[in-house]
Amino acid sequence: MADQSKIEEGLAFAPQFDADGLITAVATDAKSGDVLMVAHMNAEALRKTIDSGEAWYYSRSRNALWKKGESSGHVQRVVELRVDCDQDALWLKVEQAGPGACHTGRRSCFYRAVPLGKASSVTLEFRQADKTFDPGKVYK
Amino acid sequence: MADQSKIEEGLAFAPQFDADGLITAVATDAKSGDVLMVAHMNAEALRKTIDSGEAWYYSRSRNALWKKGESSGHVQRVVELRVDCDQDALWLKVEQAGPGACHTGRRSCFYRAVPLGKASSVTLEFRQADKTFDPGKVYK
Repeated sequence: MADQSKIEEGLAFAPQFDADGLITAVATDAKSGDVLMVAHMNAEALRKTIDSGEAWYYSRSRNALWKKGESSGHVQRVVELRVDCDQDALWLKVEQAGPGACHTGRRSCFYRAVPLGKASSVTLEFRQADKTFDPGKVYK
Repeated sequence: MADQSKIEEGLAFAPQFDADGLITAVATDAKSGDVLMVAHMNAEALRKTIDSGEAWYYSRSRNALWKKGESSGHVQRVVELRVDCDQDALWLKVEQAGPGACHTGRRSCFYRAVPLGKASSVTLEFRQADKTFDPGKVYK
């Protein structure tokens, strides 16, 4: 098989990290299917996620390995981890502990919708304006 | 409000394109919640998506704007478009036309699971090995 075919059709796990050593990871709620967050993993975060069954990420803003929930207690238990065709993206179906995944205090990071129809005049619409927890209290 | 607070709590749509002018876009099946694919949009793809209500992306491998389904007919009608807290990721809930989203001939690009427990010896497991369409016939 050619390399691309191996990556797409093979059983060897060959995560394709980008030039910064990161791979995109999408976490969805295992029950509702809602996207909770989009984040990144480096090789170590991925290894720790697989070993522990709990989600670890790499923060690009803080340049640091980061266990989801290490400050807040809002850990993510990974129900299933999947990789996409070209192995440059991961999908984590998770059980989200606590009231939410988002550092703003909401269940999902995707709490605002972009109305369709006219790109030249977009005003976002809140889908979850209220916070489910107080980030000031949770992140010390 | 500080810039970060505006981005996170405001109603102004301010997509944060990366150094390559791209933003990550996650498409999920509006009914099942399954992640169908992870792709990228540039500003034009995003504008066309909002204007048309159908998903457009930017292919990094082909360096080209790309309407999903333009070759295959497997277009994605966007039921809802959402943006995340820091506005550097998009979530499209879509109605996927045709038998699938993946160029390999499957419904979702995430057709293989990464077993948890031991990162040092991972063998992928197919969750959907069979193809729902023949990519050789669909992509001319």
